[in-house]
Amino acid sequence: MYAPDDIAAPLASGSYRTEGMVILPCSIHTMSAIATGISSNLMVRAADVTLKERRRLILGVRETPFHIGHLRTMVALSEMGAIIAPPIPTFYHRPSSVEQLVDGTVERILDLLGMPDPGARRWNGPHQE
Amino acid sequence: MYAPDDIAAPLASGSYRTEGMVILPCSIHTMSAIATGISSNLMVRAADVTLKERRRLILGVRETPFHIGHLRTMVALSEMGAIIAPPIPTFYHRPSSVEQLVDGTVERILDLLGMPDPGARRWNGPHQE
Amino acid sequence: MYAPDDIAAPLASGSYRTEGMVILPCSIHTMSAIATGISSNLMVRAADVTLKERRRLILGVRETPFHIGHLRTMVALSEMGAIIAPPIPTFYHRPSSVEQLVDGTVERILDLLGMPDPGARRWNGPHQE
Amino acid sequence: MYAPDDIAAPLASGSYRTEGMVILPCSIHTMSAIATGISSNLMVRAADVTLKERRRLILGVRETPFHIGHLRTMVALSEMGAIIAPPIPTFYHRPSSVEQLVDGTVERILDLLGMPDPGARRWNGPHQE
Amino acid sequence: MYAPDDIAAPLASGSYRTEGMVILPCSIHTMSAIATGISSNLMVRAADVTLKERRRLILGVRETPFHIGHLRTMVALSEMGAIIAPPIPTFYHRPSSVEQLVDGTVERILDLLGMPDPGARRWNGPHQE
Amino acid sequence: MYAPDDIAAPLASGSYRTEGMVILPCSIHTMSAIATGISSNLMVRAADVTLKERRRLILGVRETPFHIGHLRTMVALSEMGAIIAPPIPTFYHRPSSVEQLVDGTVERILDLLGMPDPGARRWNGPHQE
Amino acid sequence: MYAPDDIAAPLASGSYRTEGMVILPCSIHTMSAIATGISSNLMVRAADVTLKERRRLILGVRETPFHIGHLRTMVALSEMGAIIAPPIPTFYHRPSSVEQLVDGTVERILDLLGMPDPGARRWNGPHQE
Amino acid sequence: MYAPDDIAAPLASGSYRTEGMVILPCSIHTMSAIATGISSNLMVRAADVTLKERRRLILGVRETPFHIGHLRTMVALSEMGAIIAPPIPTFYHRPSSVEQLVDGTVERILDLLGMPDPGARRWNGPHQE
Amino acid sequence: MYAPDDIAAPLASGSYRTEGMVILPCSIHTMSAIATGISSNLMVRAADVTLKERRRLILGVRETPFHIGHLRTMVALSEMGAIIAPPIPTFYHRPSSVEQLVDGTVERILDLLGMPDPGARRWNGPHQE
Amino acid sequence: MYAPDDIAAPLASGSYRTEGMVILPCSIHTMSAIATGISSNLMVRAADVTLKERRRLILGVRETPFHIGHLRTMVALSEMGAIIAPPIPTFYHRPSSVEQLVDGTVERILDLLGMPDPGARRWNGPHQE
Amino acid sequence: MYAPDDIAAPLASGSYRTEGMVILPCSIHTMSAIATGISSNLMVRAADVTLKERRRLILGVRETPFHIGHLRTMVALSEMGAIIAPPIPTFYHRPSSVEQLVDGTVERILDLLGMPDPGARRWNGPHQE
Amino acid sequence: MYAPDDIAAPLASGSYRTEGMVILPCSIHTMSAIATGISSNLMVRAADVTLKERRRLILGVRETPFHIGHLRTMVALSEMGAIIAPPIPTFYHRPSSVEQLVDGTVERILDLLGMPDPGARRWNGPHQE
Repeated sequence: MYAPDDIAAPLASGSYRTEGMVILPCSIHTMSAIATGISSNLMVRAADVTLKERRRLILGVRETPFHIGHLRTMVALSEMGAIIAPPIPTFYHRPSSVEQLVDGTVERILDLLGMPDPGARRWNGPHQE
Repeated sequence: MYAPDDIAAPLASGSYRTEGMVILPCSIHTMSAIATGISSNLMVRAADVTLKERRRLILGVRETPFHIGHLRTMVALSEMGAIIAPPIPTFYHRPSSVEQLVDGTVERILDLLGMPDPGARRWNGPHQE
Repeated sequence: MYAPDDIAAPLASGSYRTEGMVILPCSIHTMSAIATGISSNLMVRAADVTLKERRRLILGVRETPFHIGHLRTMVALSEMGAIIAPPIPTFYHRPSSVEQLVDGTVERILDLLGMPDPGARRWNGPHQE
Repeated sequence: MYAPDDIAAPLASGSYRTEGMVILPCSIHTMSAIATGISSNLMVRAADVTLKERRRLILGVRETPFHIGHLRTMVALSEMGAIIAPPIPTFYHRPSSVEQLVDGTVERILDLLGMPDPGARRWNGPHQE
Repeated sequence: MYAPDDIAAPLASGSYRTEGMVILPCSIHTMSAIATGISSNLMVRAADVTLKERRRLILGVRETPFHIGHLRTMVALSEMGAIIAPPIPTFYHRPSSVEQLVDGTVERILDLLGMPDPGARRWNGPHQE
Repeated sequence: MYAPDDIAAPLASGSYRTEGMVILPCSIHTMSAIATGISSNLMVRAADVTLKERRRLILGVRETPFHIGHLRTMVALSEMGAIIAPPIPTFYHRPSSVEQLVDGTVERILDLLGMPDPGARRWNGPHQE
Repeated sequence: MYAPDDIAAPLASGSYRTEGMVILPCSIHTMSAIATGISSNLMVRAADVTLKERRRLILGVRETPFHIGHLRTMVALSEMGAIIAPPIPTFYHRPSSVEQLVDGTVERILDLLGMPDPGARRWNGPHQE
Repeated sequence: MYAPDDIAAPLASGSYRTEGMVILPCSIHTMSAIATGISSNLMVRAADVTLKERRRLILGVRETPFHIGHLRTMVALSEMGAIIAPPIPTFYHRPSSVEQLVDGTVERILDLLGMPDPGARRWNGPHQE
Repeated sequence: MYAPDDIAAPLASGSYRTEGMVILPCSIHTMSAIATGISSNLMVRAADVTLKERRRLILGVRETPFHIGHLRTMVALSEMGAIIAPPIPTFYHRPSSVEQLVDGTVERILDLLGMPDPGARRWNGPHQE
Repeated sequence: MYAPDDIAAPLASGSYRTEGMVILPCSIHTMSAIATGISSNLMVRAADVTLKERRRLILGVRETPFHIGHLRTMVALSEMGAIIAPPIPTFYHRPSSVEQLVDGTVERILDLLGMPDPGARRWNGPHQE
Repeated sequence: MYAPDDIAAPLASGSYRTEGMVILPCSIHTMSAIATGISSNLMVRAADVTLKERRRLILGVRETPFHIGHLRTMVALSEMGAIIAPPIPTFYHRPSSVEQLVDGTVERILDLLGMPDPGARRWNGPHQE
Repeated sequence: MYAPDDIAAPLASGSYRTEGMVILPCSIHTMSAIATGISSNLMVRAADVTLKERRRLILGVRETPFHIGHLRTMVALSEMGAIIAPPIPTFYHRPSSVEQLVDGTVERILDLLGMPDPGARRWNGPHQE
């Protein structure tokens, strides 16, 4: 664990090896800083390094509505290799609490990271659900 | 109320006057059909009319993650005048149930339509909350 | 004459030879399907074949007003080789009936097809009119 | 009423307040002059002012067929905020004269201006027509 | 009135309702932060919210000359819905002091906000001036 | 095995895990539907899911000639992560039957999927062939 | 033969049939007017009609050097279907006078029009020259 | 018949008249050289001349899979007027040998050249086949 | 000194040597004519020559607000090499009259031309001012 | 003087100082090689170095007509800083021989290089000529 | 090991399986040939195959400064999937010889290939270094 | 010498005259801030001023590998007039120490500034080296 302003931490260098990075929730401010390369804190610098080393970067962008600028920024990030995964809840499992909704989001992010949660609920069609 | 395949319903013509249109939730399929103009059912045709008559169209796009194609389609829709408003829940009011989360989404959509819910909770800063 | 859903009709193959194709009037739905390549009926498939074989395709697009999406689709179709010819009536011949207006549109389309109507009225300047 | 070459008329300044502007019919020449900003007469200058003050500008572009240049110009004008509304007649009310056709076009323009004609005919579906 | 670093003030949320926002003068730094979404202070965050809620945002950008980067940023902001209104003085009213020049700029901004100053001077042509 | 209109089958959800997807042959219609997101059947929906989950999608597009629209669609699909692999036969192994030609295509697809056929013939230069 | 300001001459209408049009030499001013659609004289209007009717338009643009704006205009004209053919002399026939140089240019233009000059000199390789 | 390095052969000049040109098969190397204008041998120079003289150029591009660069090059070539016609075999005539497959490709190319083979098999629908 | 319609004056040719050109104030009309190449008077033709000869061209564009079309035109002019320098007054020298404001604008233009006014006031930081 | 294949000559390095470079005439092949960076001989490598060191590069491109690819390449070269100066003869000095025409082209190139020929003829208007 | 002109070597075919490819140093010439697809030697052809088979291609581009053309080529290569890794030395390990600088570059390339050198030095923050 | 946060120093105004500016090494963070106009410290503001006053700005960008975002930012900076000159060492002078490598980089930067080091080593071909 490093402080946001610990700009010289190991995560700030491509020579430090990681599997990937998740930012959840990800504000418009952080998303924009990554997209432009304005790496004024450790989180943004680490995300930039993740992209340049071709590791997996997942951004749980949280904002609504989006204006054209936000959407173009997300297109640009996707073109750089990031995955835009806003925490939009799914209802097909009929969650009964806020916690279950949040769990669903986390399970989908873990799948994208390649570290699936063995207990994650999965869609098997309307009959098997 | 009209059936989806009632393609000749009044909503299919710009001469029929409305204030605007909301699609919530809005699937990738429906969003894409509106963006391309493939108006094979009444919902898509009515959305196309809403755009050409410069009325307000709000799309509560529900999908995650988004790939580049999804994001570019949302950019294109924004350039045509639509508002992309995915139902991403906010937590600053500390919702205690799924219903409260959904209510928050609906309140934000009503604001965008210019028909604010008088009972909607609004952010007044960390102290007044 | 073929039914719209006769998707395996000769017109669906480039090996079947034609001179060109006219769609008049052409809805936003049909124009969009051709532009994107979503050839779910024979008319759209035949139009796609006409473009790929570099034969003449004329689309009498009928809609007003156009939004940005409609216009960009027409630009894309023009870039693919189609001719966008909305049935906008001309008045320099002072038509006295709806039929004469429609005839004027048809005469212009026939010119574009390279099959001019010998009886078509043509502009010869203000004095000779 | 001002002469086209009265380039210093009140309409030439954004400080003069109007609700909007309609040009019907609008030639390719006038449309192109507005799109490029070549404001050599009062009509084009007034249209440019209408756009920069974010008032409603409606262009009843009259030409057929359109080539790529025309269509790209219309895309650009739409991006600047103008509404492209070619006077393409509609037939669903089964007009019996040229005058009725023209009336239909004028009714749609008035709707776009936000000044609907109370007597305008409107589509109410195939049964109520 | 809120301090620039009061990032959690009501203005930072779309749920807080406003009519619009004016930044005058607006530096290149502030304009660029809004365009990219790098909302490191309350002013930029509030401007971002104004854009996403489709309210009116007016930027009195003050810089000269502009380089290509500045101009592209202004194009991007316009595409997001902002109005670029640099405080370029007008001389047709023959201002006799710096104050009158500034007043002219303010009157034009108020017009754009839809809150015209009743005492604003308006161009009525060369004869009535 | 699922029917094309079994739109609620497990394959329609990202939560259902797969390694990738091959469509061979892939018509212009199917390719276009995937590119635009018009997922009106299970095959197109499953392909859209494959792209959004960053799994491998291989499209054996079968058409000739291609017009500009087809080619731009293939560019867009490649930008979304799909692999465009038309079944163009290779002759360097001097196939003596149609079956051998088809086998060559299948071997190349399996390589792209990361599931190479152990018996696949491979180029080892002109001398070792 | 028509005067440049005879804007209502037959050439100004697509209904008047021609094979094509050559402008030689073509100034930057005329080329730019055609590219933008600012048809303030008969020559430009006739060129615009030639393009919209998909007839052959050849522009012998005469200027040097070209700046980026000139070159982009020529790209745009080519995309609309015009042929950019600057009168750059060729020397492989070893012209001995200015007249022979000019003749070479005219011969190439006639070829492009599909009306080759039977006496035109043609390259047959270094030996047969 | 000319050697590839006979760069001064008649085919290298636009003054030498031809009907069109076919390259079959066309490697990525040759296609790329034509697209960029790097005409280091007679085949590429002749193709460049064919394009500038607006004659028909058909490229039977043979490669699989295509990456984004290949596809963008094909888009660019199409925009210059070339026809991209990869030799993808069709099976609707149920070819029983490699020779029949190849014949099918040649027949389609001849159609595109405007020199149809009288004996070419053509699709006449599923019943007449 | 030449009249605006003296289109054959020396300034209209690149062979006539100058150091550069300033247009102050520069209207939207003039700026647009330069950007498009519609050189209908001597001022616009001379500006076009200045650009093609790679000499310095400075445009003191005077308009507010700018719409998207204006801004895109300024981007295009910058890409052609022009300098966009709107006469936006600066206040850091605390001008006490309109004349001083105007002087400040002229001093900045002279700097850009490379002909600095020896008496120009320059910023030396808050303390030395 | 260096041979074209003397790829290691001093001109191949940016550390070797020159004022600029002229290629006259410049073939489509050479122009394209510079634009793409395919520096297979000393002339192209030296031109690439001239561009990267921000020295003046003038290309007397000789070809006609130009197709879209040629024109786009010239746009790209202009964006990289090169000057496109095709040897199109001017006639305002009424040249009486081919030599005088060629001299006129050389004089204009020398002006662009900043090394004007003192004896160059210059336009002084129709009266002083 | 194959000679550069052994264009038929196994590496020239996608059917020959490799893990990836590194070109270090990579000249502007080689980088440009890969980007355009002009595969005139084995190295460029092998790189093209690496891209089309979606294997890892790393280009240690060595040049300085870069002009716009070089940078756009690198953008295009990145969009095709290549990794642009110029051998810019890092100093945080305080290398004491040229060999150590070169080693640092090689270590970073091996990381990108997914074959990390066990002895590679890695950044662990300022304190642990 | 000014502190980074001395945002009101003379360098922050275009009225303060300089010859140019070099940033060596230049981080991704600084490069990105200049490209976007986010001038939160004196160095970035001074660079922005250097660009708007059309003075020489040289950025010795130090990072490897570059991702698409980095490369696009460098393209944008080049289009604004900056020179991207990463400190990539050259080896043709066979440097024997890190200091000599660094000297080589500095010599090339001084050349670009137009202030060549008289003692700089220059390439004179393989024989004279």
